[in-house]
Amino acid sequence: MATDIKTSELKNPVDVAEYLFRRLHEVGVRSVHGLPGDYNLVALDYIPKNGLRWVGNVNELNAGYAADGYARVKGISAIVTTFGVGELSAINAISGAYSEYVPIVHIVGYPSTISQRNGLLLHHTLGNGDFNVFANMSRNVSCNVALLNDPHEAATQIDHAIRECYLQSRPVYISLPTDMVRKKIEGARLEKPLDLTFPPNDEEKENYVVEVVLKYLHAAKNPAILVDACAQRHRALDETHELIKKTGIPTFVAPMGKGAVDETLPNYGGVYAGDGSNAGVRERLESSDLVLSIGAIKSDFNTAGFTYRISQLNTIDFHSNYTRVKYSEYPGVRMNGVLRKVAAKIGKLNVQEGPIPNNRIPAEERKSEDTTITQAWFWPRLGQWLEPKDIVITETGTANFGIWETRFPKDVTAISQVLWGSIGYATGSCQGAALAAKELGVKRTILFTGDGSFQLTAQEVSTMIRNGLSPILFVINNAGYTIERYIHGFDADYNDIPDWQYTKLPEVFGAKDAKTYQVRTKEEVNRLFEDRDFSQGDKLRFVEIFMPRDDAPIALKSTAEAAAKTNAKME
Amino acid sequence: MATDIKTSELKNPVDVAEYLFRRLHEVGVRSVHGLPGDYNLVALDYIPKNGLRWVGNVNELNAGYAADGYARVKGISAIVTTFGVGELSAINAISGAYSEYVPIVHIVGYPSTISQRNGLLLHHTLGNGDFNVFANMSRNVSCNVALLNDPHEAATQIDHAIRECYLQSRPVYISLPTDMVRKKIEGARLEKPLDLTFPPNDEEKENYVVEVVLKYLHAAKNPAILVDACAQRHRALDETHELIKKTGIPTFVAPMGKGAVDETLPNYGGVYAGDGSNAGVRERLESSDLVLSIGAIKSDFNTAGFTYRISQLNTIDFHSNYTRVKYSEYPGVRMNGVLRKVAAKIGKLNVQEGPIPNNRIPAEERKSEDTTITQAWFWPRLGQWLEPKDIVITETGTANFGIWETRFPKDVTAISQVLWGSIGYATGSCQGAALAAKELGVKRTILFTGDGSFQLTAQEVSTMIRNGLSPILFVINNAGYTIERYIHGFDADYNDIPDWQYTKLPEVFGAKDAKTYQVRTKEEVNRLFEDRDFSQGDKLRFVEIFMPRDDAPIALKSTAEAAAKTNAKME
Ligand SMILES: Cc1ncc(C[n+]2csc(CCOP(=O)(O)OP(=O)(O)O)c2C)c(N)n1
Ligand SMILES: Cc1ncc(C[n+]2csc(CCOP(=O)(O)OP(=O)(O)O)c2C)c(N)n1
Ligand SMILES: [Mg+2]
Ligand SMILES: [Mg+2]
Repeated sequence: MATDIKTSELKNPVDVAEYLFRRLHEVGVRSVHGLPGDYNLVALDYIPKNGLRWVGNVNELNAGYAADGYARVKGISAIVTTFGVGELSAINAISGAYSEYVPIVHIVGYPSTISQRNGLLLHHTLGNGDFNVFANMSRNVSCNVALLNDPHEAATQIDHAIRECYLQSRPVYISLPTDMVRKKIEGARLEKPLDLTFPPNDEEKENYVVEVVLKYLHAAKNPAILVDACAQRHRALDETHELIKKTGIPTFVAPMGKGAVDETLPNYGGVYAGDGSNAGVRERLESSDLVLSIGAIKSDFNTAGFTYRISQLNTIDFHSNYTRVKYSEYPGVRMNGVLRKVAAKIGKLNVQEGPIPNNRIPAEERKSEDTTITQAWFWPRLGQWLEPKDIVITETGTANFGIWETRFPKDVTAISQVLWGSIGYATGSCQGAALAAKELGVKRTILFTGDGSFQLTAQEVSTMIRNGLSPILFVINNAGYTIERYIHGFDADYNDIPDWQYTKLPEVFGAKDAKTYQVRTKEEVNRLFEDRDFSQGDKLRFVEIFMPRDDAPIALKSTAEAAAKTNAKME
Repeated sequence: MATDIKTSELKNPVDVAEYLFRRLHEVGVRSVHGLPGDYNLVALDYIPKNGLRWVGNVNELNAGYAADGYARVKGISAIVTTFGVGELSAINAISGAYSEYVPIVHIVGYPSTISQRNGLLLHHTLGNGDFNVFANMSRNVSCNVALLNDPHEAATQIDHAIRECYLQSRPVYISLPTDMVRKKIEGARLEKPLDLTFPPNDEEKENYVVEVVLKYLHAAKNPAILVDACAQRHRALDETHELIKKTGIPTFVAPMGKGAVDETLPNYGGVYAGDGSNAGVRERLESSDLVLSIGAIKSDFNTAGFTYRISQLNTIDFHSNYTRVKYSEYPGVRMNGVLRKVAAKIGKLNVQEGPIPNNRIPAEERKSEDTTITQAWFWPRLGQWLEPKDIVITETGTANFGIWETRFPKDVTAISQVLWGSIGYATGSCQGAALAAKELGVKRTILFTGDGSFQLTAQEVSTMIRNGLSPILFVINNAGYTIERYIHGFDADYNDIPDWQYTKLPEVFGAKDAKTYQVRTKEEVNRLFEDRDFSQGDKLRFVEIFMPRDDAPIALKSTAEAAAKTNAKME
């Protein structure tokens, strides 16, 4: 049984909850997502006291998505839920963050250690006296689980959990029993900030790898760079940009890596996703004799259905925990150090130009007299309207594929869930991203969600309003689950959705001065984009944009076909 | 590797998905809850083909809650979700069903067994090639997990899972990989219905227990019966009623057992919950020299904070898997057989009368000039308006405690989550209950939810509309989380919620002819209850009922105080 720490033994006694929230503040958290519950209420009192804002989400799944969006913009985030009912409501969002390498500190208010020890039959339990069952479920989707049951361990556990969260860029789980909240622990530790630097590679090994990489680079006739999500999630974008700029090598991004690279660089070449690539990209990249692949996650939707055609013999892979040159693996060699040295030592290379992407509307669309807003027309048109620093969130569905055709201005942050792909994510995530943007002084957070997806988490718009956020929300009304139609059941009832009066929602959710719009034609989109009030406004803007039920970005069509084939394959 | 069954060897080949849905139909399922996803789309085609309705919920958590509500009315239910993202969104609802003994068949669309074997990096995975991780999470909250990976086993697995679901009255988990959906299996098995009878008790042992029970019953001077949730969940209500009617013993219900007993019986005495009991109940029950406790779940909220004062020396406990007489335990002796025999053999007993509950408004409320709708006034007033067969759903919060003061007409079904207590549950559950009611020809399904709780799952109202349901929805607008205020942070921001325009929601969600009401005074409630259109209408009716922020049923106040104490206890 854990005994208390004698307060007289402590140089600077602070409560466990204070310690926790001060550490979160230290690593950059300014807002805490979540919902109250009686097992966390007392802990919530510590949030404002330690310079943090309580977001007060509308449900826990939304809160989890929001924490994910916040972390993608600010580098880390925190969510507080209550035992059982709250944490399990959020677990899909946490799993998504685990899958996609997003660092979220999940704090769960627990029954007191005394109640646990006595096996009380408490609300929010399975009725079987097991107080570890939910933590055990979360172990599968957390890179660290810290059960704070002993004040002697609490500070170490908290420090370790937050550090792992940051360095592994994945969720951690911290239980905070009601009786631990006010236990006194040593606050003097807080004077020393957490060390969040990555342990360096073994120098000799790193240098060896650098030489191998340089050798192949110098020998290459038309090298290319392909940047994917892990370059961003594992915080290697500075090194990556150094390499891109210094070498001038044509550079492409995978869909999950969209936004990771400055798309205004002269050697930025567009999105590579096998059959779903931007025009000209596939030919260029697949004919390279050396591809530097940085932070790849070759999942089905990220590769338009496993349609990469790049030989491993022409590839060097850079990752957070290993490097691979052709088939030679170098476990433990993290990309950051290697990329930095390669860029520093690079010298002259053979570089052949690549395609230059743009936001031109495709010819057929320009010629067409049809006023309908098509997917092929919209996404490049959007690119013309976006501004530097915009945060752009796209939902699984047509939006997530359409955005491949949008070329971004400088410093755009793109958020989506290409691997996990949980619908409803984007709306929740937008709340967190918009809040993070506000904290950072970034002006525009822009959501593109499908109508089907929006319905899952629509009430998170109310949290945006409550927190005084003013994102721009686009709901694509195409009468249902279009992406699913392309996979199976084109006209099936189960791909239909109820018809909502979307634009009334902001007012229903309490907005006093939100602006709402319905756009049905290309002309209306053009006018909307030219409207200064809309583009530069400081109110929440909600756009219902109508697109045809049966229309989808071309990359979606081929990916959906591939998915249907994989699903249908029988032996 | 599983090989196909040769179709020529099968007497009546049917596809795995057909087999599954026909079995569900056989046990009484008529509607299947859930959302599509590419791993379940092909399976969904089998739903209408086998006489079932696809509900098409708005998100998976709501679908899970709805399946729970449907099962509480119809005896069993089914939900289909998609791998990872879908199933985990529902897992809190499934956990609630596990905790509260509600039988739900959870079918999860899985990637094909071929993709699993090849470890493909698919969407909705954690990116680590582990296809068992989500099933393993669900094992904690399912009484059976059937992974359908081999056609030779599939029929047996399905039969076993559905049977366990029914008999243990808890959720089961069935994986259905895309390539298994159309595999042929033996359909001839379907001619023989599943055996859903409980294995009988060992006769000698049962008779022994019956004699012991009778001995104590005959010796008792003023016995009492206390009925709780498990009597209902483990399908022992017929036997329980036989006993109640035949003996005339004063009978009480615990809050979780509310609705289990016919409250119009002359010997029905009201709700017992220790300090939170109906007037006179506590004194009567605690002075009994023998309490027949049927299906007890003595959780904190079900006992107003562990305030029972009944000695085990005066108690006989009847359960689904054991009987306990004072301190003598009889493992494996299920209540049904014992209760039936006790009732049959009972003979003459000493019976003293108990209190007779009613729906009289408390004197202070009757005298008061204040027009405000108070909790003390409302709940008995509600009892005057309820009708036989009504289905009444109450949410965790003031409603769940208020309903203790409502005496029900005959055959009322009451639904709530006293043990699991996940807010948002009631609105989702109401959708499923209303659908089940429609299938059974029951006229009124009535929801009471708090404003805070409603916000979590509000969009399930849209599923009600989509399915042509017309429940009566009461949203209690008391400006936030009143139950939480009574536990901690009475005026804290975190117990506030955004102010919504609730009554606009049905229209926004697509209702063409819903009726909406706002009631602020007792007089308005009286008028509403007298309005035939409202009481007997066949449209969806949505009532925003205003009650004071700081008002709560008295039983809630004492339970909240006890919870706060338990949480705060320090060593
Ligand atoms: C939580 C969850 N449930 C179900 C799915 C399966 N799913 C993937 S996309 C999709 C439909 C999305 O429809 P919508 O948002 O309208 O997109 P669009 O019409 O633009 O394709 C569904 C149901 C999922 N990915 N996540
Ligand atoms: C999913 C979930 N999240 C959080 C909680 C903690 N909780 C219990 S009751 C409650 C407030 C309910 O408020 P409301 O529905 O308005 O009820 P009332 O005001 O009538 O008490 C909260 C937040 C919970 N039980 N379940
Ligand atoms: Mg759509
Ligand atoms: Mg309330």
